[in-house]
Amino acid sequence: MTQRNIEVVAAKRRSIENIPVEIVERKGIGHPDSLCDAIAERISVEYSCWCQDNLGVLLHHNFDKVQLVAGEVDIDYGRAQMLTPIRIQIAGRATPLCQGKKVPIDDVAIQAAKLQIRESMKYLDPDRHMVIDSYAGRGAEELQHVVAHVTANDTSFGVSYWPRSALEEVVFKVAEYINRTLITELPVGEDIKVMGLRRNNALTLTIALPFMALQIRDAASYQQLKKDAAAAIHAYAQSLDERQVNIMINTADNLDQNAVYLTLTGTSAEMGDDGAVGRGNRVNGVIAPFRSTSLEAACGKNPISHVGKIYNVMALLASQDIIRRVPTVREVTVYLLSQIGSLLDQPLVATALIHPTNGSLTSSIIDDVRAVLDENLAQADTIQSRMLNREMTLF
Amino acid sequence: MTQRNIEVVAAKRRSIENIPVEIVERKGIGHPDSLCDAIAERISVEYSCWCQDNLGVLLHHNFDKVQLVAGEVDIDYGRAQMLTPIRIQIAGRATPLCQGKKVPIDDVAIQAAKLQIRESMKYLDPDRHMVIDSYAGRGAEELQHVVAHVTANDTSFGVSYWPRSALEEVVFKVAEYINRTLITELPVGEDIKVMGLRRNNALTLTIALPFMALQIRDAASYQQLKKDAAAAIHAYAQSLDERQVNIMINTADNLDQNAVYLTLTGTSAEMGDDGAVGRGNRVNGVIAPFRSTSLEAACGKNPISHVGKIYNVMALLASQDIIRRVPTVREVTVYLLSQIGSLLDQPLVATALIHPTNGSLTSSIIDDVRAVLDENLAQADTIQSRMLNREMTLF
Amino acid sequence: MTQRNIEVVAAKRRSIENIPVEIVERKGIGHPDSLCDAIAERISVEYSCWCQDNLGVLLHHNFDKVQLVAGEVDIDYGRAQMLTPIRIQIAGRATPLCQGKKVPIDDVAIQAAKLQIRESMKYLDPDRHMVIDSYAGRGAEELQHVVAHVTANDTSFGVSYWPRSALEEVVFKVAEYINRTLITELPVGEDIKVMGLRRNNALTLTIALPFMALQIRDAASYQQLKKDAAAAIHAYAQSLDERQVNIMINTADNLDQNAVYLTLTGTSAEMGDDGAVGRGNRVNGVIAPFRSTSLEAACGKNPISHVGKIYNVMALLASQDIIRRVPTVREVTVYLLSQIGSLLDQPLVATALIHPTNGSLTSSIIDDVRAVLDENLAQADTIQSRMLNREMTLF
Amino acid sequence: MTQRNIEVVAAKRRSIENIPVEIVERKGIGHPDSLCDAIAERISVEYSCWCQDNLGVLLHHNFDKVQLVAGEVDIDYGRAQMLTPIRIQIAGRATPLCQGKKVPIDDVAIQAAKLQIRESMKYLDPDRHMVIDSYAGRGAEELQHVVAHVTANDTSFGVSYWPRSALEEVVFKVAEYINRTLITELPVGEDIKVMGLRRNNALTLTIALPFMALQIRDAASYQQLKKDAAAAIHAYAQSLDERQVNIMINTADNLDQNAVYLTLTGTSAEMGDDGAVGRGNRVNGVIAPFRSTSLEAACGKNPISHVGKIYNVMALLASQDIIRRVPTVREVTVYLLSQIGSLLDQPLVATALIHPTNGSLTSSIIDDVRAVLDENLAQADTIQSRMLNREMTLF
Repeated sequence: MTQRNIEVVAAKRRSIENIPVEIVERKGIGHPDSLCDAIAERISVEYSCWCQDNLGVLLHHNFDKVQLVAGEVDIDYGRAQMLTPIRIQIAGRATPLCQGKKVPIDDVAIQAAKLQIRESMKYLDPDRHMVIDSYAGRGAEELQHVVAHVTANDTSFGVSYWPRSALEEVVFKVAEYINRTLITELPVGEDIKVMGLRRNNALTLTIALPFMALQIRDAASYQQLKKDAAAAIHAYAQSLDERQVNIMINTADNLDQNAVYLTLTGTSAEMGDDGAVGRGNRVNGVIAPFRSTSLEAACGKNPISHVGKIYNVMALLASQDIIRRVPTVREVTVYLLSQIGSLLDQPLVATALIHPTNGSLTSSIIDDVRAVLDENLAQADTIQSRMLNREMTLF
Repeated sequence: MTQRNIEVVAAKRRSIENIPVEIVERKGIGHPDSLCDAIAERISVEYSCWCQDNLGVLLHHNFDKVQLVAGEVDIDYGRAQMLTPIRIQIAGRATPLCQGKKVPIDDVAIQAAKLQIRESMKYLDPDRHMVIDSYAGRGAEELQHVVAHVTANDTSFGVSYWPRSALEEVVFKVAEYINRTLITELPVGEDIKVMGLRRNNALTLTIALPFMALQIRDAASYQQLKKDAAAAIHAYAQSLDERQVNIMINTADNLDQNAVYLTLTGTSAEMGDDGAVGRGNRVNGVIAPFRSTSLEAACGKNPISHVGKIYNVMALLASQDIIRRVPTVREVTVYLLSQIGSLLDQPLVATALIHPTNGSLTSSIIDDVRAVLDENLAQADTIQSRMLNREMTLF
Repeated sequence: MTQRNIEVVAAKRRSIENIPVEIVERKGIGHPDSLCDAIAERISVEYSCWCQDNLGVLLHHNFDKVQLVAGEVDIDYGRAQMLTPIRIQIAGRATPLCQGKKVPIDDVAIQAAKLQIRESMKYLDPDRHMVIDSYAGRGAEELQHVVAHVTANDTSFGVSYWPRSALEEVVFKVAEYINRTLITELPVGEDIKVMGLRRNNALTLTIALPFMALQIRDAASYQQLKKDAAAAIHAYAQSLDERQVNIMINTADNLDQNAVYLTLTGTSAEMGDDGAVGRGNRVNGVIAPFRSTSLEAACGKNPISHVGKIYNVMALLASQDIIRRVPTVREVTVYLLSQIGSLLDQPLVATALIHPTNGSLTSSIIDDVRAVLDENLAQADTIQSRMLNREMTLF
Repeated sequence: MTQRNIEVVAAKRRSIENIPVEIVERKGIGHPDSLCDAIAERISVEYSCWCQDNLGVLLHHNFDKVQLVAGEVDIDYGRAQMLTPIRIQIAGRATPLCQGKKVPIDDVAIQAAKLQIRESMKYLDPDRHMVIDSYAGRGAEELQHVVAHVTANDTSFGVSYWPRSALEEVVFKVAEYINRTLITELPVGEDIKVMGLRRNNALTLTIALPFMALQIRDAASYQQLKKDAAAAIHAYAQSLDERQVNIMINTADNLDQNAVYLTLTGTSAEMGDDGAVGRGNRVNGVIAPFRSTSLEAACGKNPISHVGKIYNVMALLASQDIIRRVPTVREVTVYLLSQIGSLLDQPLVATALIHPTNGSLTSSIIDDVRAVLDENLAQADTIQSRMLNREMTLF
């Protein structure tokens, strides 16, 4: 076994917490881009499971192109009527025939998309509000084979870091709180966007929050609900951070012009907001422009051989593992660079940038980090099964 | 006039040239993602021009969702037959009615897409090889108005830097050389990908390069052409950098299995590679994962009010201007952060991270950079006309 | 009130029963063409009901273009897998805006199509096996108004006759027997075609009959089921006619080559048979090439003003009424010709061709027939409500 | 050689000329239904030619489902703007793979459709005004084989007659005159409908005639052009028949409300009129409801084995041949009924209904007609090549 090319170095950059201004965003699970991410990834999972169950092998595929075309609604307080459905256009490449068996690409893709919506959205009904069609086709000839041992055929790149900054933590958790808890308490939908700004030792969360038109009878109720939502979110957010947290909801509202954020289905996809894969949250759940980040759209890519997907996920998992197991590390960023022709567990270089908890980077810390990173690389193949078991969210 | 909130600070991070490993990628103009970027941006331009010509105003719009569904070809040396067309699915939001006049959204979008392909691709024919359809619709009600003075209604973010690193420069120029010059000399197409790796003081360019099936009669010719192309590219690339430059073309080729990169149209979109907007090059023309970067898809967004688009472009232009006009600056990265409710030329904060040419950051350099940055912000509105005149490429 | 222009004349032609050879066909309710007819008509009904409920008026519309694109299945005894869904492409014209209210054309059309499939098909599931999308749009400007009093703006034509010939009766009833009764007793689907031939005083019914793959384990079972089905159908058919009735089922079967008529959903739309409106049964439920017939596609057209639809239905209803109420008439064919600019109850000419029960046409018969026909014309407007209440099947 | 089962009998029915009222319709070549017919048939022809050229055989196919979804225009005198393109949805079944060669079904279909529009329409541009896509797929397994000797696998039916009635002749020739000649003289389009009514010894032609908006500056010009057109058509029509011919053009026009028949492309498909195959003219070029007719959509079906298509064409050709070669026959209607399992030239029964020129049907006439009909049946296979050479129009 070749020794892996691992570098552990001290981060030169300021810790994110020491930058005077920070912005972080999370698109909620009902945002049109998140819906596309979720559908793309679910198709990859269901396609892989179909292949395992029916063929005993995994097949190459790539479903990282899904486009959402917004619908149209006629909406007002207490009233909502779908005019035009939301359209989901699934592109993607897969293997139509294997071992003499036909592979139901389109059927798997469409059913996976519906399943995903059904399981994740409270009000949006894939059969009632959406038209989901598949334009998937075969890939280039050379990609249609069963995978035996996987080597990188491209120079690709993954990066992630851990832990989240305080602002990232607040933004992520507040979005999850609204999507998981508040939705059971107030008539709100899942298509939220939480934009966090840290400045002058205060946090401001600007939140787009859809309300359910059928459960709100007039402007007064809407305003009251906005206040209730703001209060609940504020209480929750303030419990996460000692600094002052300001909550601003639906700042573009203009009640006089009846411009408010009402929905029938809980997502702006019903009226005017299109979506696509890879345009939303990164694999760690946020968009953090001041952080090292990858442009790679992880969702929908195959978890067997797509370096871009696997290395981004592996960088996140390794970062988390380092923080968990090396208490002397306060902050870590992991970069993984693939090497053409080598196995995935043998990157060209794996770099960990470290902010130690105290003082400077010691050789003991370096050894500890190297060991954890090496171990994570060695277990590259467990990532695949974790993705197929849907143990992790990639957006 | 309020003074702008401009910060000029010394970069803590190592210069990109001092990082031991660097990777940079550029997708050529025929890559499926680049085709989508190009189409999306062209639609925005043509739609804006239509509105100016016919209504005398610009209208809100957003065409940053375009999906390419790959076609299918039957191909071999000397022979190529389109089986299934490439499909372009244009999503997007625009204003269907203004001042009592109907706005031909679908027609403008489809014709703009065809025009873009016709002008940029040598072999790909939008009428012969593609089916281009528009699924564009109206936006949410509040976005359908004419724009008077534009304030940011979101906290958004733009970042760019200048100059390119040496590797970025080589990757960018080599891709452009192939797309503009080599294509006139050898039977190659536009869907190239140049992946550059700098390591151990050498540059390696791994290049995917499509050859035109109809002009190549057999495997021997193909191999010869690959050699010719490699030689030409090597000569050009080596002229750009003193270090050793290695050229590797179509590394996945397997001539025994007839797995070679032949195309009918010059792009893999004809067979198995889908595309989408915002998934390729950034506004400065490359994908540079070790650099500060924005996830924002600039192409297709309206150049009037979309902060994400405008601030990314402005950050690039300001960086270039600083390098051009402040010789004491060797490297600059500009961050622009919008402020809800403020005009675009009044960002919440504009930050320039500086690597001075020599020594440390002096107050004189700070003043010079601040002045240039301030001037660039003041001319925010010229960016719009530069985009509408197609004076800049955003991908 | 102008007297109506009614002609009652003796039929010169032989009665259909006296022609030596007769062929008659009925496509079952699961035939792709019948599915399109059924969907088109249901959309017209649901759209009309929506308008009545929400606007208090009926609006012009025309949904007589619906196309079914066949899916693909992988099928064998005991096993069936959808590969590609059946696609329904709804075209059509309607009114998007009335009295300031938006009319949900696409939503009504898609939901109506699903409702129709759900109510009429035992195995075919619109959400599981089909992708139903609407491409409906506005009509030409002049058609977008509410209808007050309706005059024909075209010279159009309707024709029908009554009673059915003996062969027509057998074909119609056998098809209905299979679609309503046999389907509850044997594992068969709805996409049948019954082709009847009368010759040499015998009737031969050649029947295409789909069997449900999941309920049939092998070729032997299939053959046994075919025999069972043939026996049941023969018993039923023979009870309808004294002459010898021969039953031939799935004559194209080739068991050696595994070419048998197995389905997952009960319709060949799942694999290889497309469908369209107006290509199947006439309003009296059969295709009888030796009879006077109209090419008009009645299904999906608006029941308010579309002369072609209304006059075909009216000709059938009037024929039935004449036979019911004038016992001296054995056979009647009614032709109705519209008059540009006149109300629907004032045709240019209404002709009844009569075969009297005995002997020749008397003035008493003529008077009786004229009275019934006149009465039917006077009640033209009841036809609309009968169609909207779905009291009659048009295919 | 078995003797063919040919019956020659005297027609009992009145000659069409003796019926007091007659209506006949022809949809011009630019009518949405005619466009679909033309496209469907052209696809069949081009697909067949591709197979002959590349495989040396003909393959089973069926392209008789093509749907046109109307576009949208913004139009007025002197001004016309496409808003939404006309969409052509090609369904159909064909063979994707033969002799190891891939068959470019979609590409052939789309290019054939464009070729047809380009060759037949003066203003309508398939690339500028239309989006043409193919949804064609494989047929059921048993239909995917090469055809050797063709036997009918269904009881099917063809019927036609000759000569045209006087009214049919006027309607047909006037429509052709407008589509071929008048279009070169006046700014008119191809989407015409000529509805002819014979009554009281006069002919009335009610004609829908599209005018080209860009060539007409105002209502006065429009009215003048209508008068010019009416005069030219009247002169031509009157030259065809001695009886009085009345011409009525665009009777639904309402100049006060600006409701006139203006087009950009020459067809109402641009705004509000959908189309489908098999919904327009019969194989003899007209819709004649008082005549024996077939519901079969001939266009797009394969000319190798589809009995419905071949027998309708053969009935027309045989009728024409009988009239040409048997001067003692004034009028003939030919019915052809296929026989399951027999070759196409061996129908179950071929019937010719005869109106002799003078007096009653003699055995000499019977023999002559039988001989011509027999000869036509014997040459069944020449029909195929005539269709593939596009020597006949089927609509």
